Amino acid sequence: MTKASRIGPLFTDLYELTMAAGYYEHHMFYPAVFTLFVRGYPVHRNYFVAAGLEDALRELEQFRFSQDELNYLKTTHLFSNAFLSFLKAFRFSGNIVALSEGTIFFENEPILEVEASLIEAQLIETFLLNTIGSQTLIASKAARCVHAANGLPLIDFSLRRTQGQDAGLHVARSTHIVGFTATSNVLAGKMYHIPISGTMAHSFVMAFEKEMDAFSAYSKTFPHNTVLLIDTYDTLEGARNAARIAHEMKTRNASLMGVRLDSGDMVDLSVKVRNILDEAGLHDVKILVSSGFDEYGIADVLSKGAKIDGFGVGTKLGVSADAPFMDIVYKLARLNDRDVRKLSPGKVTLAGKKQVFRSTDSTGTYREDIIGCRNERIEESMPLLEKVMENGKIHGPYPSLQIIRDRFKHNFSCLPEKYKDLSQDTPRYPVKLSRQLEDLQNRV
Amino acid sequence: MTKASRIGPLFTDLYELTMAAGYYEHHMFYPAVFTLFVRGYPVHRNYFVAAGLEDALRELEQFRFSQDELNYLKTTHLFSNAFLSFLKAFRFSGNIVALSEGTIFFENEPILEVEASLIEAQLIETFLLNTIGSQTLIASKAARCVHAANGLPLIDFSLRRTQGQDAGLHVARSTHIVGFTATSNVLAGKMYHIPISGTMAHSFVMAFEKEMDAFSAYSKTFPHNTVLLIDTYDTLEGARNAARIAHEMKTRNASLMGVRLDSGDMVDLSVKVRNILDEAGLHDVKILVSSGFDEYGIADVLSKGAKIDGFGVGTKLGVSADAPFMDIVYKLARLNDRDVRKLSPGKVTLAGKKQVFRSTDSTGTYREDIIGCRNERIEESMPLLEKVMENGKIHGPYPSLQIIRDRFKHNFSCLPEKYKDLSQDTPRYPVKLSRQLEDLQNRV
Repeated sequence: MTKASRIGPLFTDLYELTMAAGYYEHHMFYPAVFTLFVRGYPVHRNYFVAAGLEDALRELEQFRFSQDELNYLKTTHLFSNAFLSFLKAFRFSGNIVALSEGTIFFENEPILEVEASLIEAQLIETFLLNTIGSQTLIASKAARCVHAANGLPLIDFSLRRTQGQDAGLHVARSTHIVGFTATSNVLAGKMYHIPISGTMAHSFVMAFEKEMDAFSAYSKTFPHNTVLLIDTYDTLEGARNAARIAHEMKTRNASLMGVRLDSGDMVDLSVKVRNILDEAGLHDVKILVSSGFDEYGIADVLSKGAKIDGFGVGTKLGVSADAPFMDIVYKLARLNDRDVRKLSPGKVTLAGKKQVFRSTDSTGTYREDIIGCRNERIEESMPLLEKVMENGKIHGPYPSLQIIRDRFKHNFSCLPEKYKDLSQDTPRYPVKLSRQLEDLQNRV
Repeated sequence: MTKASRIGPLFTDLYELTMAAGYYEHHMFYPAVFTLFVRGYPVHRNYFVAAGLEDALRELEQFRFSQDELNYLKTTHLFSNAFLSFLKAFRFSGNIVALSEGTIFFENEPILEVEASLIEAQLIETFLLNTIGSQTLIASKAARCVHAANGLPLIDFSLRRTQGQDAGLHVARSTHIVGFTATSNVLAGKMYHIPISGTMAHSFVMAFEKEMDAFSAYSKTFPHNTVLLIDTYDTLEGARNAARIAHEMKTRNASLMGVRLDSGDMVDLSVKVRNILDEAGLHDVKILVSSGFDEYGIADVLSKGAKIDGFGVGTKLGVSADAPFMDIVYKLARLNDRDVRKLSPGKVTLAGKKQVFRSTDSTGTYREDIIGCRNERIEESMPLLEKVMENGKIHGPYPSLQIIRDRFKHNFSCLPEKYKDLSQDTPRYPVKLSRQLEDLQNRV
């Protein structure tokens, strides 16, 4: 299960429907191909991570207009009865090829191509852009956080400030794809079978007379899962109180899992707290930190010698704060057996049914990608776009989240380090056009 | 109707549930007061616009754990059977005071205060922050766009790149609150009774042999609602084609509503297109523009003499790109008849049940706000927090979107111009504490 319920075909820009009505009235039931891709990198990005496909495909499988939805369209007085009847019988029956979720990809590369009748392909545009775009955005940001953390566990703490509800859910899923170990989001835990994590807020500590009372009460309720938040009053005093609780817990066969810092100088405080814990013989009590982290903050405190065992990563990740959108677009590439392209300055598109070919060196490290024609074969390279929907039905069993996680991990290990830098826009991973695709562009 | 369905109580950070379990096991069923507020302004912001309350209240009215949700919580092995039984019977039965949607407010002012048992108030934290935060964020951004447009109509075009589905819906609603005239989002049109707008994409023009064919076909399907997108090939040639179509439409008692520009130099092109249209006697054909606009872009092209009759405002608005989150927080203010506050540096909170008082000059212009005690009376000022929920039930009929729109319009007209500047962080609107509230803070 990936969604609580269908969103339905009215989740669209009106113009998709008015264009469809235009095509319908003029009997333009031609086959079409549309390509979904990202036009250029946001600041500091050098790669993207594909995400959102499962949500997209599950919705398309049940893409139909309910009577209630048709009744609403009728009230707009924009559409003929004939067109509304056509919509009533409408199903998405097209074919889709796509990059598997968890795949690393680059600017201008097709993430997905839809082959369907012009009307079908048009009506799903807004939904596809929103779904694939928002989840790919977060997966791409989260991959940077995982890279910055250099093996330390990360937990998604973003739910309270994501831009809405399903944003919160897909942040949990997208971060898990790229290697986050858990989420604070309970509903996402239930829906996606992601481990959930979380302990206490400052209000819990404040709800007791003394910090020690709060720590003691919590440790009794959660003998094996306690992480104490130690910065409500004085962080170092909080660390000493946590040490006392840890010893007390041992006497009843319980154990303190960790402490959490949520404010202050994380480098200085983490070192001092580590000392307090170590001096108390509590070498296995972890130090977790939160408070405004993203990939830049993680890399910064680690480079300065912070003694940190894990990060809660929240708001800035959950909205991709430094790059809260991508220039993701969906463009007509072929219509009625004619390849087509747009030539507006800065908005050029690639005609034809395409494929992405990736070549590696002998160790498996990515060397370059070639965007080619779909039916092309390019030696010593792997085609990345796979059939995922056929005649409106999802092709084969959809892969589990674990398979998707493993795919990302493998992909990321094959991406040369030079493209992973957090703050450099160069070098760019090489993406070329095949000779055959280039010839096709020139002919069109 | 504001939402397709309930999201349910698992839409929460896990720690709300673990804290609740701690309170439960220690019999801490005390009454509590929590305050929701924004700690500081994002860049270039000097005011906020309250939004999201209706969604929040409607969810709280039906806040309960289903058996399916309880079953999931059981699988986590974190919670006792006694606590799960307690959750099964759990309802939100508290009282809430809040700023009405559409109200302009300022940093640190309570947007909402919850009075409920400690557990009840804690369990709704994540949901409230997400719901009020995300909608207030967009309403506040959109108000700046409306101000920049100086009376020209704005249409929400953001759906394809909002961060998810309900983001798309609440962007449509929040932008409508502050004066946007329409949205491209059809589902939002249905749900909120907002006018919907939209015509054609470049793919429509490309689907025909010639631009003229596309224009002609569209104008026949929509004789009274046609806006022609004229920049697929050559904008000025597109404008001349549109003029021909406009004359042709007149011969069949139809009329061309407008043309749309979606790329290029909007100042230069809009002036040239206006000339083409005017020379063809088409003074009433509007020029609409889209493509990357936000308040800064709108102000820029208008200051440079662009001939524009309306803007489609999309991505940068829909994700509040220059400030994609606010530091919205929910803090314990009173527990078991004891006022409490947090004193961490930079994270100070205000103890006690509070009220926001606004004073105006003789013309109704806002002068200053005073945060006081709830039961206080401050002369010549208006209390802004109103009772909106009583014993878990929405208090009175919820106001219509039109009433909320009118409230914003009035509020905005009372806000002095100096606080509306798009790029200045100063001056700050004065927000003070009442003597009585200050005394209370010092005593706590």
